[in-house]
Amino acid sequence: MANSVAERSLSHNSSSSLRKRLLVDEWVVIAPDRAARPRQLELSPSSSDDFCPFCPDNAQVTPPTIETWDSPVFPDAPWGVRAVANKFPALRVEPELSTEPDGLYESISGVGAHEVLIEAPEHHTRWRALPAEHLAIVLGAWQDRMADLRRDKRLRSVLAFKNHGARAGATLGHIHSQLIGLPLVPTRLRRELDGARDYFQNTGLCAICEMIARERSTGDRLILENEAAVAIAPFGSRTAFETWILPRSHRGDYLSSPRSELLSIAEITTTVLDLWRRALGEVAYNLILHCLPFDLLGEPYYHWHLEMLPRTGQVAGFEWGSNMYINATPSEVAARHLRKLADHSA
Amino acid sequence: MANSVAERSLSHNSSSSLRKRLLVDEWVVIAPDRAARPRQLELSPSSSDDFCPFCPDNAQVTPPTIETWDSPVFPDAPWGVRAVANKFPALRVEPELSTEPDGLYESISGVGAHEVLIEAPEHHTRWRALPAEHLAIVLGAWQDRMADLRRDKRLRSVLAFKNHGARAGATLGHIHSQLIGLPLVPTRLRRELDGARDYFQNTGLCAICEMIARERSTGDRLILENEAAVAIAPFGSRTAFETWILPRSHRGDYLSSPRSELLSIAEITTTVLDLWRRALGEVAYNLILHCLPFDLLGEPYYHWHLEMLPRTGQVAGFEWGSNMYINATPSEVAARHLRKLADHSA
Repeated sequence: MANSVAERSLSHNSSSSLRKRLLVDEWVVIAPDRAARPRQLELSPSSSDDFCPFCPDNAQVTPPTIETWDSPVFPDAPWGVRAVANKFPALRVEPELSTEPDGLYESISGVGAHEVLIEAPEHHTRWRALPAEHLAIVLGAWQDRMADLRRDKRLRSVLAFKNHGARAGATLGHIHSQLIGLPLVPTRLRRELDGARDYFQNTGLCAICEMIARERSTGDRLILENEAAVAIAPFGSRTAFETWILPRSHRGDYLSSPRSELLSIAEITTTVLDLWRRALGEVAYNLILHCLPFDLLGEPYYHWHLEMLPRTGQVAGFEWGSNMYINATPSEVAARHLRKLADHSA
Repeated sequence: MANSVAERSLSHNSSSSLRKRLLVDEWVVIAPDRAARPRQLELSPSSSDDFCPFCPDNAQVTPPTIETWDSPVFPDAPWGVRAVANKFPALRVEPELSTEPDGLYESISGVGAHEVLIEAPEHHTRWRALPAEHLAIVLGAWQDRMADLRRDKRLRSVLAFKNHGARAGATLGHIHSQLIGLPLVPTRLRRELDGARDYFQNTGLCAICEMIARERSTGDRLILENEAAVAIAPFGSRTAFETWILPRSHRGDYLSSPRSELLSIAEITTTVLDLWRRALGEVAYNLILHCLPFDLLGEPYYHWHLEMLPRTGQVAGFEWGSNMYINATPSEVAARHLRKLADHSA
């Protein structure tokens, strides 16, 4: 949740913590350090040409490099992809892990990791404009960073995600994604894992493999497919044009995915983003990697995938109160529209 | 979730339905009728002087009046508060209720009610500018509409909420709130009810009564109080300055709350909104009524209240993926700041 200028004027001295909400098994990250961060992107398109801390020439203002990756797409740049610690982290790796339950309230010290992946040296590029070859390096960089974070035994899961555009919560315009390592498994992922485990125990099957088979057979919600991946508008789409990118092969551990599969995922993702642009214009979106958390690696029931949500509207009172979403565009209608656009360009 | 102009160009013929998301016990409302609605408020402040369907002179363009309430604050207007059916409903009362589970996917026909409460005849007023006397009539109108909807045995719960400002999902500028009646109890409310029931079974106490007692005793997160209500920044605040308004008396059924209590609630709510304005400027917000659903009326463990969330930031990829929220302002800091502002005006 990005914060406004008004909130920055308050002085904070406390450190980060995770707090459990009253009565529900949902956690919030209280991150006083985040209040001070710059906001280059506001919802009005005024200030996109401000100084950019993520451009290669300004590397001295970001925290030190954690890791870099070369890319044949940017042979002359100092790096193709660069991971740095978030300068305004939600969580830090330094503190000791401690929990403080007291019956009514419960909290955990803010142990975690918060990294930024600068996805290309070029400021103005976007995922849909990048060659799949480069995007596969980005997806591989997520793997490398998760493999490194996995060695910290206090962390139980890592969430990799991308906010593109101010309406999707991005505060800087330079192409980037984020990884947040957590000392717990977040509620939504845990419920999804529980659902997948139950389905597997009841049927002996992976629910996502079943979903892929069903959607490929009926075709109503299938957007496109290639040799190793499919793009589907999910039955219960939360937003218009929500799209899931799923590897055809059953794997729960994202780190076990071979580079050839990441390349197929990258190809289909850039195509979907291009179809979205033609259907919706330049749309803000969130993209989230769903995969097995560290302490469940080896479990047979889950299937990693990407969930992509165009952000054309606002989350409102009904959604906050119910955790339900109102979506005016059934997934069959969205998928048909995108298939039609894909046919026209074929 | 509000939808963009781009989505309206798609033709829809299907009717509303509730669909369960894959693997998680979370539902979405697929509401094709919503795609056609007007959007007066965009995130740029351009079009706020458009034709307003909620002003008394334009009553002929809204669906027929369901109910009206007089108010001494607007003695010359045709009504003080007016309930109409939503012209672009998420759900309708007409269809037969039917469920369609098939193992992988599950859906319910879109039975429900979607009403708009036009909270005052005056276009430009806001909750904080209205006398508490009038706001208590609005809170009473919620009771009256819920009492009426309760007679439809297909409905299991009603969510009453308010979206103020474009960033909070409002699409029209005229002061209004909404009621959505549902054939199920929404996930978040059900989890909260389960948590309250478990706490009650373990301790014999209401968790919210306990929270009020604790916050009044320590004072750290207490914002203000009057004879019948308290305003508290909750321990696990999801956004900066999140505020809960709680009646001091233990009641789960919102309809059993007497008018004197609603007046105290109205007074404290307008004061909080005024403090928010002084702390945050003209801020968008969501306000949500939490109360016992129809089929749990009489249960002893719940305590109705209002949850208010200033919307200074965007819900982003981390929140979508985890159902966790990152908040840079601890509730103790927010409460202290608001108390200080309240002291200055005392």
